[in-house]
Amino acid sequence: MNDLFSEIDDIFHSRSLAIYGVSRKGGLGNFLLQGFIDQEFPNIFIVNPRITESNVKIMGIPVFSDLKSIGVPIDLVICSTHPKFVQDIIIECGENGVKTVIIFSSGFGEKSEDGKKTEKELVKIARKYQMRLIGPNCMGLYCPSSKLSFFPGLPTESGSLGFISQSGSIANIMVVMALLKGINFSKSISYGNGIDLNFNDFLEYLGEDPDTKLIACYMEGTNDGRRFIELVKEISRKKPIIIWKAGATPAGSKAARSHTGSICGNNELWNNVFDQYGVIRVYNMEELMSMIQAFINPIPVSNCRVAIISGPGGPAVSSADACEMNNLKLAELTNETKLKLRGLIPEFGSSISNPVDISLQGALDPTLEKAVYEVVGTDPNVDMILIWLTMLTRYRDFLKLQEKISKPIVIVSAIDMNISPEAITGTMKRAFVPIKVKKVPTIVKNLNQKGISIHPNENLAAKALYNIYQFYNKS
Amino acid sequence: MNDLFSEIDDIFHSRSLAIYGVSRKGGLGNFLLQGFIDQEFPNIFIVNPRITESNVKIMGIPVFSDLKSIGVPIDLVICSTHPKFVQDIIIECGENGVKTVIIFSSGFGEKSEDGKKTEKELVKIARKYQMRLIGPNCMGLYCPSSKLSFFPGLPTESGSLGFISQSGSIANIMVVMALLKGINFSKSISYGNGIDLNFNDFLEYLGEDPDTKLIACYMEGTNDGRRFIELVKEISRKKPIIIWKAGATPAGSKAARSHTGSICGNNELWNNVFDQYGVIRVYNMEELMSMIQAFINPIPVSNCRVAIISGPGGPAVSSADACEMNNLKLAELTNETKLKLRGLIPEFGSSISNPVDISLQGALDPTLEKAVYEVVGTDPNVDMILIWLTMLTRYRDFLKLQEKISKPIVIVSAIDMNISPEAITGTMKRAFVPIKVKKVPTIVKNLNQKGISIHPNENLAAKALYNIYQFYNKS
Repeated sequence: MNDLFSEIDDIFHSRSLAIYGVSRKGGLGNFLLQGFIDQEFPNIFIVNPRITESNVKIMGIPVFSDLKSIGVPIDLVICSTHPKFVQDIIIECGENGVKTVIIFSSGFGEKSEDGKKTEKELVKIARKYQMRLIGPNCMGLYCPSSKLSFFPGLPTESGSLGFISQSGSIANIMVVMALLKGINFSKSISYGNGIDLNFNDFLEYLGEDPDTKLIACYMEGTNDGRRFIELVKEISRKKPIIIWKAGATPAGSKAARSHTGSICGNNELWNNVFDQYGVIRVYNMEELMSMIQAFINPIPVSNCRVAIISGPGGPAVSSADACEMNNLKLAELTNETKLKLRGLIPEFGSSISNPVDISLQGALDPTLEKAVYEVVGTDPNVDMILIWLTMLTRYRDFLKLQEKISKPIVIVSAIDMNISPEAITGTMKRAFVPIKVKKVPTIVKNLNQKGISIHPNENLAAKALYNIYQFYNKS
Repeated sequence: MNDLFSEIDDIFHSRSLAIYGVSRKGGLGNFLLQGFIDQEFPNIFIVNPRITESNVKIMGIPVFSDLKSIGVPIDLVICSTHPKFVQDIIIECGENGVKTVIIFSSGFGEKSEDGKKTEKELVKIARKYQMRLIGPNCMGLYCPSSKLSFFPGLPTESGSLGFISQSGSIANIMVVMALLKGINFSKSISYGNGIDLNFNDFLEYLGEDPDTKLIACYMEGTNDGRRFIELVKEISRKKPIIIWKAGATPAGSKAARSHTGSICGNNELWNNVFDQYGVIRVYNMEELMSMIQAFINPIPVSNCRVAIISGPGGPAVSSADACEMNNLKLAELTNETKLKLRGLIPEFGSSISNPVDISLQGALDPTLEKAVYEVVGTDPNVDMILIWLTMLTRYRDFLKLQEKISKPIVIVSAIDMNISPEAITGTMKRAFVPIKVKKVPTIVKNLNQKGISIHPNENLAAKALYNIYQFYNKS
């Protein structure tokens, strides 16, 4: 554990907090404050120089006209004011022994050359006082174990996912997305323009953080490509790294420059680095959620021979396509397996070769699918399993299967798991038995923790399998 | 309207139906029968030679030991028996003036060379009696306007989507998927091995069918490539054709051969044909649903300059990437638009250039997004709009917007529309206001009918826009 680790770890263990930019009439500062109140962060104070009366409270939190008046040491300051006030606030923080300032305010390097100059000035001030800065143009930190938050109402449960995001909104939305899949965070970091602590610093930190088992990122660019490469090279040996790298095209790069002032760099170069070190690249939030699920508790494999099991025959074909497109091999089932399948599956409208097609009978006979999963799953020629099914109703079968086989399993669920039981009516309910919406996060969580992930299409399911194989078989 | 059209149209207007393969103990035949009962098809009879008593009913439907005993002319027969009985049943049908037999039974050409021979025999018999065959190894027909069905509990409402599927299960699942998006069918056809009426026949039919405004297909191969090309060339001039062509890789092609005995053919060749005639190719059900939504009521455009509007800045960047990857141009907003936006959007953490970044303020101020949509939407340099948002809560804004601008609009909805209000708790509800699950199909339907479609990621949203542009600008 080096100095940087301790320094960032200290930030995550801040014990007192002051927030600038909270007003009586409300606004973004109040919104941020609500996040900390919801987490029950213990020592919160508001600083607002326009409120000079004593004993004022906003949202139940005491207001002071300056930092000094608070009278207790402040570890962390959140600055959510107009950008023109930020420099003076940073100086005030430095003079009062604040350890870290999260600059939520935007309107700096992402806006203009003048903004870039101001950023340099802010860093200079921070250095002088041995203070660290996060931001500007960021949401800050979410760490349920130490009650830090960047949005109201976030879950208080901790998990194993560490998330780093150049975009604050993506950091927010990701928490909601993850909540719906029963995924919890060790830490989520929105670092914005990253003028002091930046992407690489947080990546290095999460690489060493024992609470983080899996790292996911949204990034637009890096200011130090060499260090980034060294970091992913080292970290990806022990933890999976999933990166949503935006700015893959000239149009995207241009958008990134006005978003966080990022230089996206040559896309091919990025891909080479990602490929070489087994970093998993994704292109949107849907892919990100797929890959995170697959890496919550991945099961090691040394080969990539996939068995496909499907009730409908059509998706068996497109799943085979997806496997080949993602560099996976289709497993050759043993004769023993085929004989067993012959005894289980109806003779017609089915297939006992890989892809195994259970036929429509699977929809009518709940025991058939389960038996087939076990026969195929225990085949020694099968390293990984892709199952295409319409409904997750019989998810317990997968948990039991996994106890026996312990192989990576991906499920393509054509019909949305969050489906409403009310939307399926009449006799259709006989074949399509939806699970209760409220239960979805718990079901997905239980599956993920056993190395079983759920995907919205064949391509992402196959991509997840390939990434798991790659992760455990890096050169 | 040619003979083939009339012939197939007559099948869709069958007035009496006999079904083989229904038994007292239940099974797939009974399952199929339930579909017709649920649609209230008027004249249904069961034929089962093992039941020789008179006045027997199964599921409320009278049973006869043979076709002749029914005593009324039968237009359509559904054959759901073991394959070994099929040939005799076809002969019996021919002798009794049946017009069409849907062979649900499988175990023919997709299984063996012998099966292929039997198929030829069946066609010969059908020709002799001037009878048409659908299948074998298929689900048959779903046509709510004439009460035909291939699955229990299907919606009784008609729509404008015509669907042709080599896979029966996909035809089924598609109805459920569509139901959840408020999409209804003119006809859905599962033709299986297509030994008599085949993919091309049904494509030709739907091309001329006035009730079908949009054709979607799942196919693995065709037995007559030249005719297929001629058909798509002609039909795609007037109706959009979306094809999920499976068997794109050697592994997929092999799977297709055992599924429906299809020869998938050279993938590049297929792509050339699709590109040349503006056929929209998709690779899985998720893509299929995206493109269908986009073409329920597409709005004509003559150029492809896209405006991106996003609250979160990150997805604005990846949306710009997705547009460029899908050959779209980013619109240059006029100075007038930018000036108007400057007056609306907060100065910091935002962008008034395309992609327009509303900033986090959009989550707090419901009127802001709406105002921005209108300013950007009415810009003369903007042909199409991509909106990235987390929740569809304010969907009415889009309907109102569309009344003013009438341009293709695609929405990327990061958080599942089918989300449960129960899954979002506490203060999180302030920013994430989910819509009621029950309302989703109606909301999506209303949006689709105004040329607004909802997509699970940036790539599919951009692909939808490009396909709309291509459809209206074919050479």
